[in-house]
Amino acid sequence: MTSSVPASSLDPAVAARLKRSADGLVPAIAQQYDTGEVLMLGWMDDEALHRTLTTGRCTYFSRSRQEYWVKGDTSGHVQHVRSVALDCDADTVLVKVDQVGAACHTGARTCFDNDVLLDK
Amino acid sequence: MTSSVPASSLDPAVAARLKRSADGLVPAIAQQYDTGEVLMLGWMDDEALHRTLTTGRCTYFSRSRQEYWVKGDTSGHVQHVRSVALDCDADTVLVKVDQVGAACHTGARTCFDNDVLLDK
Repeated sequence: MTSSVPASSLDPAVAARLKRSADGLVPAIAQQYDTGEVLMLGWMDDEALHRTLTTGRCTYFSRSRQEYWVKGDTSGHVQHVRSVALDCDADTVLVKVDQVGAACHTGARTCFDNDVLLDK
Repeated sequence: MTSSVPASSLDPAVAARLKRSADGLVPAIAQQYDTGEVLMLGWMDDEALHRTLTTGRCTYFSRSRQEYWVKGDTSGHVQHVRSVALDCDADTVLVKVDQVGAACHTGARTCFDNDVLLDK
């Protein structure tokens, strides 16, 4: 995959160990830093991860629109970044954030509130 | 994608709204149900989701080995399923579990403990 990764400003040491899907992206989980709520899952390429690490605002890459989006730029529902970690395989990002308002475009606090398949 | 989805025992109403990646999978976030810790991210196809919903044990599909794996079958570090939800786009699964022991194959409690890129 390495040869097909677009140039980005991401720290080369991080870029070297990042394991991307065939589309060059990794899933990024956004979690509310204090309550632990899992808010949403987005996708990042190297540049989106770089921007998330350096701007203080969570930035994703839209698979459908093929463009970057800064969470909250349209809705005001900003995600202020508190911490960023890779998993043990370096193929998933966990971003702890302070979410302003609703994380979900439906107005729900999280994207997982409204389609519960099982609850014991 | 619908025509290429392998037959599974998943509830057809759920299968009809599930939005899979090109490889037929959806990311599945495992979260400790009481502490809120994000433990790991795995992948599920329809059958893995069905088994997770019906067996009480978290079941994933390994992208590298192209086979199902029941978390804890080898390690003993079982994930007992407490709830399962889809997100608003039906392309991500959140499974709240009771994790026995370490979630990570490294022995760490979660897969996100050891590669912190930013911590404010």
